[in-house]
This record gives sequence, C-alpha cells and structure tokens, in this order.
Amino acid sequence: MIVSALLTSVGINTALCVLFFTLYSILRKQPSNYKVYIPRLLAEGISRKKPFKLKQLIPSPDWVAKAWNLSEDELFSSSGLDALVFMHLITFSLKIFTFAGVIGIFVLLPVNLWGNQLEEVDMYDFAGNSLDVFTISNVNSGSNWLWVHFLAVYMVSGFTCFQLHHEYKYIASKRISYFSSSKPLPHQFTILVHSIPTSSSCSISESVDSFFRELYPSTYLSHVVIRRTNKIQTLLSKSKNLYKRIRQLRSNSTQQNYNHGGGILGLFGSKKDDLIDHYGKKLEDIEQNVRLRQAEASLIAEEARAAFVFFKSRYGAASAFHLQPSINPTQWITEPAPAPKDVYWPFFSESFMKQWVSKLVVIVVCILFTISFLIPVVLVQGLTNLKQLEILFPFLASILSIKFVTQIITGYLPSLILQMSLKLVPPVMGFLSSIQGYISHSDIEMSASKKVIWFTVWNVFFATVFSGSILHQLYVILDLREITSNLAVAVPAQASFFIPYVATTGWTNVLSELFQILPFISSLIKRPFTKQEDEFEAPSLAYHRDVPRILFFGLLGITYFFLAPLIIPFLLVYLCLAYIIYRNQFINVYTPKYETAGRFWPIVHDSMIFSLVLMQLIAVGSFALKKLSPASTWTLPLPVFTLLFNYYCRRRFLPIFTAYSAESLVKKDREDEKDPAAMNEFYNQLLIVYKDPALFPIHHSSSTDSLVSPLLS
Amino acid sequence: MIVSALLTSVGINTALCVLFFTLYSILRKQPSNYKVYIPRLLAEGISRKKPFKLKQLIPSPDWVAKAWNLSEDELFSSSGLDALVFMHLITFSLKIFTFAGVIGIFVLLPVNLWGNQLEEVDMYDFAGNSLDVFTISNVNSGSNWLWVHFLAVYMVSGFTCFQLHHEYKYIASKRISYFSSSKPLPHQFTILVHSIPTSSSCSISESVDSFFRELYPSTYLSHVVIRRTNKIQTLLSKSKNLYKRIRQLRSNSTQQNYNHGGGILGLFGSKKDDLIDHYGKKLEDIEQNVRLRQAEASLIAEEARAAFVFFKSRYGAASAFHLQPSINPTQWITEPAPAPKDVYWPFFSESFMKQWVSKLVVIVVCILFTISFLIPVVLVQGLTNLKQLEILFPFLASILSIKFVTQIITGYLPSLILQMSLKLVPPVMGFLSSIQGYISHSDIEMSASKKVIWFTVWNVFFATVFSGSILHQLYVILDLREITSNLAVAVPAQASFFIPYVATTGWTNVLSELFQILPFISSLIKRPFTKQEDEFEAPSLAYHRDVPRILFFGLLGITYFFLAPLIIPFLLVYLCLAYIIYRNQFINVYTPKYETAGRFWPIVHDSMIFSLVLMQLIAVGSFALKKLSPASTWTLPLPVFTLLFNYYCRRRFLPIFTAYSAESLVKKDREDEKDPAAMNEFYNQLLIVYKDPALFPIHHSSSTDSLVSPLLS
Repeated sequence: MIVSALLTSVGINTALCVLFFTLYSILRKQPSNYKVYIPRLLAEGISRKKPFKLKQLIPSPDWVAKAWNLSEDELFSSSGLDALVFMHLITFSLKIFTFAGVIGIFVLLPVNLWGNQLEEVDMYDFAGNSLDVFTISNVNSGSNWLWVHFLAVYMVSGFTCFQLHHEYKYIASKRISYFSSSKPLPHQFTILVHSIPTSSSCSISESVDSFFRELYPSTYLSHVVIRRTNKIQTLLSKSKNLYKRIRQLRSNSTQQNYNHGGGILGLFGSKKDDLIDHYGKKLEDIEQNVRLRQAEASLIAEEARAAFVFFKSRYGAASAFHLQPSINPTQWITEPAPAPKDVYWPFFSESFMKQWVSKLVVIVVCILFTISFLIPVVLVQGLTNLKQLEILFPFLASILSIKFVTQIITGYLPSLILQMSLKLVPPVMGFLSSIQGYISHSDIEMSASKKVIWFTVWNVFFATVFSGSILHQLYVILDLREITSNLAVAVPAQASFFIPYVATTGWTNVLSELFQILPFISSLIKRPFTKQEDEFEAPSLAYHRDVPRILFFGLLGITYFFLAPLIIPFLLVYLCLAYIIYRNQFINVYTPKYETAGRFWPIVHDSMIFSLVLMQLIAVGSFALKKLSPASTWTLPLPVFTLLFNYYCRRRFLPIFTAYSAESLVKKDREDEKDPAAMNEFYNQLLIVYKDPALFPIHHSSSTDSLVSPLLS
Repeated sequence: MIVSALLTSVGINTALCVLFFTLYSILRKQPSNYKVYIPRLLAEGISRKKPFKLKQLIPSPDWVAKAWNLSEDELFSSSGLDALVFMHLITFSLKIFTFAGVIGIFVLLPVNLWGNQLEEVDMYDFAGNSLDVFTISNVNSGSNWLWVHFLAVYMVSGFTCFQLHHEYKYIASKRISYFSSSKPLPHQFTILVHSIPTSSSCSISESVDSFFRELYPSTYLSHVVIRRTNKIQTLLSKSKNLYKRIRQLRSNSTQQNYNHGGGILGLFGSKKDDLIDHYGKKLEDIEQNVRLRQAEASLIAEEARAAFVFFKSRYGAASAFHLQPSINPTQWITEPAPAPKDVYWPFFSESFMKQWVSKLVVIVVCILFTISFLIPVVLVQGLTNLKQLEILFPFLASILSIKFVTQIITGYLPSLILQMSLKLVPPVMGFLSSIQGYISHSDIEMSASKKVIWFTVWNVFFATVFSGSILHQLYVILDLREITSNLAVAVPAQASFFIPYVATTGWTNVLSELFQILPFISSLIKRPFTKQEDEFEAPSLAYHRDVPRILFFGLLGITYFFLAPLIIPFLLVYLCLAYIIYRNQFINVYTPKYETAGRFWPIVHDSMIFSLVLMQLIAVGSFALKKLSPASTWTLPLPVFTLLFNYYCRRRFLPIFTAYSAESLVKKDREDEKDPAAMNEFYNQLLIVYKDPALFPIHHSSSTDSLVSPLLS
C-alpha cells in the first residue's frame, strides 16, 4: 500500500467522523430519539416531552464537555466499578501509546526513513512511497541503528510493566474499598451448591438442610432449592410472543380505524378482531398452563439437584465455599453465589452431567467456528492483493485501473468487510458461553470476552500475518523452532494492512458506538408501530464486545510500535475518541446490569502480557533477521522477565480478584453485629431474593392483566 | 544387537541373581550384618547376640516366604500408607504388564515374526537374528496385520485406564479411612504462617497473637514463632564432627593400648592424648557457645517471620488455611503444617524473599544439570555402536574382535555405566528440592521424585531415542508438526537398547536393593572402629529414588509393548523380584520417617498418563509410517480420551489428596469433643511438639555428658 492510499482512507474517515459527530449532536436532541441516545436518563425519569426549540437543530458540542468533565467518583457511583475498569483500560492504553508514540515518531521513524534497505524512498513524491519505507524493513541489515529499536523495545516493555503493576494495584485497592464500604448484599451471604446426591428416603431440600445444619450448626441460616423450570420458561416466552402479536394487531387496527374510519379496510379490521380473539384465547390457555406448572414446581419431583444456601455471616459463607464439603469431591460442589439479578436461571434446568458434555461440545464448536471463519478473512486478503483479484475476475481490470477506485478498495473496503463479519463474533461467543454452564451473566460475559479475544487474535492477527488457512497457520506456529523468525518475516509485511485497519475499523467502531447505528435504524423502523409508552429498560454495555476490541488494538499497537511506528498516531486518535465517547455513553446510554467489582481487569492484564511477549518474540526474530544477532540474544531475557513479572502479579493481585480475605470478611461481619435488628430484617429478605423469575406471577406490563379481557369483550 | 548378545547378558544377570540371593540368605543371618540387613528389627529391640549355629551358614529361602505371606493390613500397620502405595505401584504394574504381556507375546510377537519387511529372519540360526525381527519394524508396510497392533493399543490403553481408576479409588478410600481412624495428630490442628509483616511497635509473636485472636476468636489456641537457628545449626554440626573425631581417636588408642600394652606405639599414644585434649577443649568451647546462642534465640531479634499457629479444632485449622487471611495476598501466607517430625527446620533460617530467588535458581540449576548429564549418555551410546568405537580407538580393534568381549560390551556395559551415573541423580535432586523452599521432608521427597522422573525421561529415554545433545533433542521435539513421525522412527530403533536395559539395569537395581551393597561395604570398612554399641536408627526408604525408577520401567513397558513385545517378560521378572524384595525390606530394613497418607499416588497416576499418551502418539506415528493411515487416524481419538479420563480423575480424586473435606473434619472434631480431658492434655502437648531441634539441650549419646571430662581427667 502506498502513502496516498492511506491518506485517502484517513481522509474519508476524518470526514465521516466530523459528519457523525455533527449528526449525533443534532439527533440526540430530538425527543423522538431519546430512546436511542439517552435511554439511561429516560429510564431514570427525564421527561420526554419538551417544547420544540430552534436550538434542537443546531449541533452543539456540550455533550463532549460533559463527558470530559465527568469525575472518576461520579462514574463509579453512577455506573459501578466495571465501568471504571473499562475506562481505565482506555486511559491505560493512552498512557502506554503516548509513551511509545513519542519514541516511535520522534526516534524510530526517522531511523527507519534514514535507512535505504528498500532503495525506493522518493523524497519528492512523498505520497507515492510505499508504507514499507516507514517500517523497520527499511533499516539496513546489520546496521547499528537497530540498537535504537532494541532500546525502544526495552523501554516500552519496562514502561508497560510499570503501568500494569500500577493499574492492577489501583483496581485491587478499589475492589477492596468497594467491598468494605458495601452494605450487606445477598450474594455475600450465599453459596450455590450443586451435584447434591439424591436419596430415596428424603427430598433434596431435606438433605440440604440436614447436611449443612450438621456441618455448620452455628452459621447455617437456610436454603432455597432450585426448581426445574425449563417448561415454564418455554411457555412464558410463547405467551410473551403472543402478547406482542396481539399488541401489534391491536395498535394497527386502532391506527387504521383512526385513519380510515372503518372504511374500505373495515373488512380486514373485523378479520383482525377475529385473529386477536383467537390469539387472546390461546394466550389465556397458555397462562393457565403456566400457573398450573408454577404450582407444580413446588413439588418434590421438580427439584433440581442444586440449591442456594444462606449463612448468617459472610465468613460462614466463604469458609463453606472454600472447604470441600463432602468426602466425594464430585458431590456437593460449591460455588460463590452471584447477585440475585445476575443469576443465569436457564442454567439450572439442565442436569450437571449435561453441563459437562455441553462444555466439551462448546470447545469443539468454538474450534469449528474459528476454522469456518476463514472465508471472509481470505476475501479481505484478496482485496489487498489487487493483482490476484484481477487474475480471478478479469472483467474487473478496467474498473481497477481507475486510481481512486483502487485506493478505496485497498484502503477502505478490506477492513470494512472484516469488521462486518467480526460483528457476528461477540453474540455467537456470548451464546456459546451461555450454554457452557456458567451460573451468572457476568461469568458468561467474562468467558465470552476471553473467547472473543482469542478468536480475534487468531482470526484477524495470525490469519492476516500468516495469510492462509487455519491449518496452514497451525503448521507455521507449531514449528516452535522457527517461530520467532517466521513471525519476524510475516508481521512487518502486514503493516500496510494494519495501519489503515486502525484508521478505518477502529474509528468506525467508536463512531458506530456513538451513533448507535443499529438501535437508531431499528427505532426508525419501529416508530410507526409503537405509539404508546412501552415498558422500557436502558441497555447495558456489552463488555464481551468492547473489551476485546480495545485489547486487540492494544495488541496491534504493542506489536507494531517498533516495526511500523506510523500506526501509533492513528491508535491515539482512536483511543481519544473512545475516551470521550464511552464516557458519554456511560452517562447517557448504559446502566450496569451487574457488578463484578473489577473482575474484568485480570483479563486485561493477561492479554497485555501476551501482547508484550509476542512483541518481544517478534523483536528477537527481527534482530536475527536483520543480522544483528547480539541484539537478538540480549532481547531473549525480556520475555523471561515479563513472564516473571506476570507470575509476581498473579501472586500479588489475582487472589484479591477471586475471593475476599478472611480479614475483610470478619471485619464486615463485626460491623453488622452492631445492628442486630437490621440484620434480622436482611436475613428475612435473603430468603426471598433468590427466586426464579419463571415462578413469578405472569405480568406483561402495568396494564397487562386487563389487556386480554377488553379485547375479548 | 543380536539375540545371542541379549541371551548372554540375560544369562549373566540370572547367574548374578542366584548368587546374590544365596549370598543374601547366608549373610543376613550373621549377627555382624544385622545392622545392614535387619536394622528395623534391631531398632525395635531384637537381641543382637545369639549362639552360633551351623544353620547360619546354610542359605535358606524362609525370608521369601515371609515376605510373600505379609498381608496388606500388616504392611499398613507396620510401615504406613506410603509403603502400601509403593507396593500398589508394583502390583499395579504387574497387572498391566501381565495383560500387555499376554497380548504381546501370544499375538503381537508372532505377527511381527511373520512379516518380512527386514528380510533377514533366519529360522535356523535363531540366536544370530537381530532383535529387530521381533519388533513392529518387521511387519510389512501397509499390511492389514497392523490392525492387530491397533487393537492391542486400544485394549491396553483401556485396561490401564480402568486399573488407574480402580487404584486411585482404592487409595483415596484408604486415605480417608486412615484419617477417620487416626488419633488427634498435632499437624491436623496446626497451620504454618509465613511472610508475617513486621511492625516497629510489637514483636512478631505479639502480632501473630493479635491477628489470629482477632480473626478466629473461638478457634485460635496459641502459636509458636520460629527462631533463626542457622548459626546454632552450624555450631552443632561442628560439635558433632568433633565428637566423632574424639570418639574415633579414643577407640583407636584403647585398641592400641590393648594390642601393644603401651609399647612401641606408646609415643603415638601420648600424642593422641594431647590431640584428644585439644579437641575436647574445642568441643567444650563450641558447646558453651551453642548454649549461649540457644539462650539468645528466645530474644525478639532472632524471630523469623514465620510461626506455627495452633487451633482448637481440625476444622478451625483447615478454614484458617483455606481462606486467604490478609488483604495483601503476599503477607500472612498460610500452609498446612507438616507433622512435627517431618518439619524441615533449616528452611526457616532463610528469609522468604531468598526462598523465592532460590526457587528460580533451582530451576536454572536443574536445567543445567540435565544438560551436563549428557556425557555419560553419549558414552553409552558409543558402546552400542562398536564400529564408532573402533574408529575412535583403533587399538581396541583386536580386543573387540573376540566375540564374548563384544557381547559383554554391547549387552552389559552400556546399561551399567548409565546406571552408575544415574545413581547420582536422586541425591542431587533431593538436595536441590531441599533448598527450593519446602517446609517438610515429605514435600522435598515428593518434589525430588517429580524432578527425578522428568530427568530420567529426558536424559535416558529421549536422549537415547534422539541420540544427541539436549539441544538436538529440543530441536527435534520442538517441531510439533513432525513429533509423532519423529518418535515413530526413533523409538522402535532403540528397542535393542532398552530390552537389555531392563534385564541388566532393572534386575541389578532390585538386587542391589536387596543386597544393600553400599551399606554392606561401609559397614565392612567401619566395623573395626565401632566396637561399642552406637546410637542407632533404622533407615527409611528413599521414595524419590525408587518411585521414579519403577515408573520409568513402567514407561518403557507401556511405550514398547506393541513395538517390541519381547521387553515384557524381562519387565515381569523385574517386577516380581521387586515385589518380593521390597516387601522383605519393609519388614526388615525400612521404618517410615513420615506419613504423607498416600500423597505419592497422584505422581504415579500422572506419570502413567504421560506414558500412555506418549505410547499413543508413537502409535499414531508408527501406523502412518507403515502406510496404514486409517489406523493412524483412528488412533488419534485415543490420546484425547486418555486426557479426558485424566481430567475426570483430577476432578474426582485429586482433591482428596490435597485436603480433607469439611465433612470428615467436623466428624472427627465431634468425636474429640466427647473427651474434653484428653483434648486438654493434647492441647498442652501441642504447644511443645513444634520445637526446632537446634534448640534442644546438646546430647550426643546416652553417655555423652560424661565423655569429655573422663578424657581430660
């Protein structure tokens, strides 16, 4: 790729940025778009109807100032620790890449340009130069200037590790202070027990009670056995769909009646009434059935072999969780309970043997999915190699000879196609994680995050670098002897793909986040049908979509900063945009669905360490390839030090993220003891909060109960 | 190697077997050898002096019958669960290899012989055949007879997994019943805390007390802070050496006085008295110093940052161990305490930062040691290739032309040299583990066992298979793409080395175990100097020497059973010998030094799984090499199933070996509560059992205190 093509794509994207910012500034002020752009404020009760003002049509940047001025404490109190961790991921990346950028742009870039390995630098036709002259490939083989790169690798590794330690420490302290300032929360007093052995003489509930009362007579409080509700869940979702259909029909018919006064279309109107009648009856049948089954669910036969067990103190619950309760380690398996809202109820409908099998199946499916994802990637690869495309489709030759088209195709289209197909990945991985046997939404999202990260690294990074099928990639990577030199050959060669990738995919990603394209379009389509106030919930941030995305750009930045420093400015722009936009979204759009209290950070940390080690291995290979073997040898200790550093961090900080210490648990318990009345109140509440939503009485919205009957009457 | 050479070496070894058995049967009856052959019985108080009988000179096999008749319960009650686990390792291997042997000898061996790939089978000169005609190499490429091997691989894998599961289950149940039938033991009520933070305001002892009293007011009992005693230890070992020297001098001088009546050598006698005087004074100085330092050790300045913390119940200790006590995971680190006798006291003399560094150093040293061990292995390799040797040392040609010499050299010497140098490995690995930071002798031996296993696999198996330097081996193994075919080429080629290896090294190993060669020789040398009764302790079995040895022969058996079934009969003889001999040694020689309650079994299990997977990978490669690719493909699921099986076992059984369940702990605690008087007695004892032996008053033997003074007077 040449510089002018890059400039074209950057130009297009800058223009898009400005356009989207302006559009957003106008659209967000229209009351009809409140649901898309400020759902959070709406859910919190801001009035929808305001008198029309001319100001609504003039774009204003006040939301940027608002997002900028948001303090960390405000963010924490309004969106929780997870949002704070997410923003810290962005600020952390900004720090790293500012440091790497200064070194890269002011030191490495001139050194690269100074070389003449490629012998094609044309100072007069700057735009006609290949991007490769800005990369390490242009430094002469064996040149001592490579020691500058060597130093840069050491400095950035050191700085990143320092920052990683600093952030880990900060977030760990935040997590501890979050715990120590929290009120008594149900999940702190609860554990989940599953694989409870069945016996013919007593019910699950009785055996849970006798087992825990025997083991922990002083701290055991009570328990709730989980019921199998998959049938009720199916019925409920059926009834929900029917309800929606009836609603839609009714709203259509009133609309038509209103428009045509029961005229020509009155015929259809009466047919519709029949349909509504029919659906209404069906709905009633189903709801009858649901009520029946809900009553049945309390029977012994519907007990799942799992229960929430409540304790009188946090310490009691924690020690019951940490000690293996039964002699047989495959029975009475304990897990810390998730918060009541966070529980993923469908999980409990399956037997635990099935869960084990489905875990295996998920692994296999993940692998197959990764392999089958190859097709769009190969397509993208074809586009960057126009000559291959011309050979495949000769009729394209005439179009491809137009310079602007070529530039668009090589600079913009490839990353767009890749990005569109990558949009599929987070939901798919989220689904796979949900059937893998996690008991909470937060665990599902964390597991999905990890899956998405590895998927992206494999299918975008390695697939692009070792262009070819997964099997070919495996073939290259499994040769561990040559891995560094293979990487050193292949990675710099793809700089011309990844630099525009950051400027197109990266920027487009954050802009579409701001503009909420899909919700906006769907609201445009739905608007005619949803006249009246719906029940309404603000969305939550899909961490498993956005955390991997930012981490992947981090990986690109870290691996390419010394190979092709030109990538850094684009990355910094991306991060700055992300900083402002996500802060704005936390204020206006997203409400937290659950609180993991920062448990996403270890994922971030591990991913950063992986990026660092990968970069260092590439450096080892690059210096060897450039025939500066002392530099290659002296880079070898770096991955060892990085891994030792990681080992230290795992010892020092990771335990804080997996469980709370006895010290803090006991301290909190002592505090509670001072107010026994409040605690009794809390214990009583504790017994009812863990209830499967499928066992709640049916209600569709505030006006539901009276919905069917007036339609039928 | 040809058959006759193998027969020669087998012949020599059989003769040695008979000779050693006969010798042992005679020697063990001589009272002067009791210390070597029945130290355990001696320590238990069997009289040393018996009237001389002629029977003492006639070899008798009664000890074999005795060892054979020993029941499992007797073994358990006399030598503990670890001895039982050790014997189970042998019987388990016997079962596996009887099964594999039946298949190998009666099915695979005829199939191999039937083939004519090597085209050199000479039925008339049986002894002149190469061993290779008995191996899979002789089966024709692409022959359908290979499906027999395929079936054999599946059957033996299945049978081994079945037996592994059975044994794991049995030993886990033994472990549980051992715990539930045990009396209150100090280490069940104790945890070890280290990395205690120092504070200027209070001593370590005070901060331990306040920390645990605050956290566990109801279960905390007391604690003992550990003292830094490395200086005292050095002094004590000095005084011990001096004491020994004085003893020796005195015994010499009394002997000489007795022999010569103070005659010609009286001159030397008086010189010796001077020397004894001198040493005696020195000894007194040192002992004074020791007493002084022991008094000082109780000062605050000598407190190490570690303590044994005692609890009132097993459950209390276990929950204090399982929950991370402090907010900072690098402080107040808890470990379950070892039994008082099992504690490795020198450990506590070092700071815990030093321990971390020494752990790293140990890893590096282990790697260096593994690499430097190359030299004897290469030498051994040279011996099996006589032609290379002739080229290197031309003057040997005439000797090497004698057939008998050649057979000795190729059949016997190589394994002998290898074995002699391998004798060094267990003590070296034991030493390395001891400086790695383990707090108990049992942990050190377990860690050393693992090290020795991997060392042996690497330096005997892989070094022989991929003959060459470690770097060359690494180079071959790191090419993961070709690993199966590389193994399939190299492993069968070394059958002619490993078959005699089992018959020589294996048999010699167990015989030397029976004959106790080194202790016997050292007792022969020492005998003149040790007239009087010494204080005397029976030795304990060096598990880190013998467990890896048997596991390595297991690895050889499993990997070679389908490649070269001829190895199995020799292995079975080895195992039968080991069965009888080790049982005999448990009765007569070894007393248990500690009780891990079967914690060696997971090591055995893991090693067996490794052997199985290695064998299966070799099978995959072999079938591909023999151009029967469907068989190769259909073998691929086997390692996957084996690893899944291992995963299941880790879930099902491993937790039982790492900690006891809450259920069993609480049950035992309840039992104790019934006898409060006995428990109070036990609590009082608890406070004094964990005492560093360096702080005990000095005493060398029963007659020590009066040793120096009569010499001086």
